[in-house]
Amino acid sequence: MLHKYALSIVLKRSFHQFNSIRSFSQKITMANKTALALLANGSEEMELVITVDVLRRAGVNVTVAGVANAEPTKCSRDVVVVPDKSLQDVAKDVFDVVILPGGLGGTDEFIASPLVGEVLKAQQSSDRLIAAICAAPLALKAHEIGIGKSITSYPSVKDKLTADYKYVDDQLVVQDGKLITSRGPGTAYQFGLKIAEVLVGGDKAKQVASGMLVNC
Amino acid sequence: MLHKYALSIVLKRSFHQFNSIRSFSQKITMANKTALALLANGSEEMELVITVDVLRRAGVNVTVAGVANAEPTKCSRDVVVVPDKSLQDVAKDVFDVVILPGGLGGTDEFIASPLVGEVLKAQQSSDRLIAAICAAPLALKAHEIGIGKSITSYPSVKDKLTADYKYVDDQLVVQDGKLITSRGPGTAYQFGLKIAEVLVGGDKAKQVASGMLVNC
Repeated sequence: MLHKYALSIVLKRSFHQFNSIRSFSQKITMANKTALALLANGSEEMELVITVDVLRRAGVNVTVAGVANAEPTKCSRDVVVVPDKSLQDVAKDVFDVVILPGGLGGTDEFIASPLVGEVLKAQQSSDRLIAAICAAPLALKAHEIGIGKSITSYPSVKDKLTADYKYVDDQLVVQDGKLITSRGPGTAYQFGLKIAEVLVGGDKAKQVASGMLVNC
Repeated sequence: MLHKYALSIVLKRSFHQFNSIRSFSQKITMANKTALALLANGSEEMELVITVDVLRRAGVNVTVAGVANAEPTKCSRDVVVVPDKSLQDVAKDVFDVVILPGGLGGTDEFIASPLVGEVLKAQQSSDRLIAAICAAPLALKAHEIGIGKSITSYPSVKDKLTADYKYVDDQLVVQDGKLITSRGPGTAYQFGLKIAEVLVGGDKAKQVASGMLVNC
């Protein structure tokens, strides 16, 4: 009888420990979502900074990677941002999402970079999330990412995308499977919040939006 | 007769030249609007970058000044921005507007800086524009700027401001004379556009908003 009682206690403790470990593990998993945000000369600073800031508020571990190097980088309206790393340093690491901010100059650098192409193709072939805003969907096309999917972009580059994608005009953010696209600086909060929603859930994204005083 | 005719030509030319000079001078005046955006450790990067970017799109000559120095500065969500100058270098220059982004850490540094106080007091005593968003109105209070005026702020710091200001809860941006205040990251576009409207006019501000896909 004592033996059975002791066993029952052991089992109850084990079950409790299992649940604690599972809960702890879930928290760790939640905390460990990762994002790689690319930065090049001429990237649109609002689109970069809003997306990075929103995701960090959501608890995502974001790395800002300079496509050329880790030196201070002049954005499209001359704001100078220092990347956390060079893309070369993190190109083999695994990230839950790879993010491309817009800006025509930055997008041209994304297009010209074979390393950006490699990172995007690896991300696509392992079925992980890719997100691009404003002019940056042009870099998706150049590196043959998500061809045939529904996307949006900054309106002025639409004509260069309609042959390869199902172009959506009437939504601020478009998600098609593991591809998220958006339109411009004025839709960057919604873009960041959509990525947050996919990575850490709608409740957390809503909490972040509320803290920023953004009405979604 | 010839003499009169020659005089008439000279006068017409002079009038034409006067108009050309006046038009040129107006263009120069429009192009020469200047803004000083303060940056400190812990400043909210979205509020800084959105305001700076919006004003540069509007043709305003913006200087980002590091309160401590001109070194790379870590913002509230770890985005690192390099100021254009140190505040010390530009503290005696004349700017059409002095802008304080929010972020509690950055605001604390603004409050602790006697130089920020000097710059704000000089701006106020010469009746030029001051603009603060989010937590930054606390720095206005600390340096006794615009006491008694209508202002707004990030909701959580309201209680520290109601004794010294007419607090407005229900507007995204509040202008009272030469003081413009706003609420948080989600109102930063409206904040930047209001400053642009005051400096370069409503038409230009609307054009900038439209280019960014911001609906005002």
